[in-house]
Amino acid sequence: MITKREYKQYRDKALKYFEKAKLALTKKEKNSIEVADFGLHRTDEIGLELVVYANNNRYCAKELVLLPHQICPEHRHPAISESNPGKQETFRCRYGEVYVYVEGEPVRRPKAKVPADKKDAFTVWKEIVLKPGDQYTIPPNTLHWFQGGKKGAVVSEFSSTSTDESDFFTDPEIQRITKIG
Amino acid sequence: MITKREYKQYRDKALKYFEKAKLALTKKEKNSIEVADFGLHRTDEIGLELVVYANNNRYCAKELVLLPHQICPEHRHPAISESNPGKQETFRCRYGEVYVYVEGEPVRRPKAKVPADKKDAFTVWKEIVLKPGDQYTIPPNTLHWFQGGKKGAVVSEFSSTSTDESDFFTDPEIQRITKIG
Repeated sequence: MITKREYKQYRDKALKYFEKAKLALTKKEKNSIEVADFGLHRTDEIGLELVVYANNNRYCAKELVLLPHQICPEHRHPAISESNPGKQETFRCRYGEVYVYVEGEPVRRPKAKVPADKKDAFTVWKEIVLKPGDQYTIPPNTLHWFQGGKKGAVVSEFSSTSTDESDFFTDPEIQRITKIG
Repeated sequence: MITKREYKQYRDKALKYFEKAKLALTKKEKNSIEVADFGLHRTDEIGLELVVYANNNRYCAKELVLLPHQICPEHRHPAISESNPGKQETFRCRYGEVYVYVEGEPVRRPKAKVPADKKDAFTVWKEIVLKPGDQYTIPPNTLHWFQGGKKGAVVSEFSSTSTDESDFFTDPEIQRITKIG
């Protein structure tokens, strides 16, 4: 859970990144930026700010903000039904730098740093570094996590339909749906 | 058909709009911007410049450039199969202004102007004006066309899978796939 005051703090920080990236939002979007604390209440380290542009039964598009060194924790999008093998998503970096980690050959010296007490919750270490204009597609049901660089990052996400509530997180302490109170 | 020289001219014009909109492209993307002349060879009036970021069997994402007053001509995305009712797409204005026209109550004084000799090829006149941060979703199989404002426009398109070759255009003279020679 985060407090209303904390919500506004992170929302305002995220807004500054939209300005830096020169990505326009409507007033309504500005007021309703989602702050995900993943139920951990350590949003500076593990958290995400996002605006959902579209999410229907055909496709989804979001803009993600990562504050400096902020981590979107490891998760995968499992199969939903026989005709839906799970969410597939393309990350396109618009501003800053983002380090993406997926299943595969682990990198020797990762650019990302994870909190010592959460080390076990990060199990995949194949590294992809995205700078503005770079993009990478994550197949369905593939473990992945990502961290903003020292200047933070703004990342466009293009994907199949998003069903956040069905995501599987490696860290059993995580609750995807943020409570504000 | 457009010549290689014409292709490069429109590509370079489009690149300036990506710069104005502060949207980064890779070198490869810059070199392979698509210029659609719709087979009409009057690209200043009727044409479109685009970069396809992703187009797979789940979703599609593109960046569209409209030069000042340039028109993407009227078309619809018909059903492809029993399970695919046709492409659905969301336009999100990133830079400039774009006038979108769809089926419905015609606007009295449209902002768009169409070439006199092509008047019959524009049959839907419900007007939606998009400025940066505004977006609009076009249902499948719905006639639509759009025109850039006086400063041109950059528009993100989020959609279901794109199959340009199956698009239906109102103007029988149109060929969607541009030939460069």
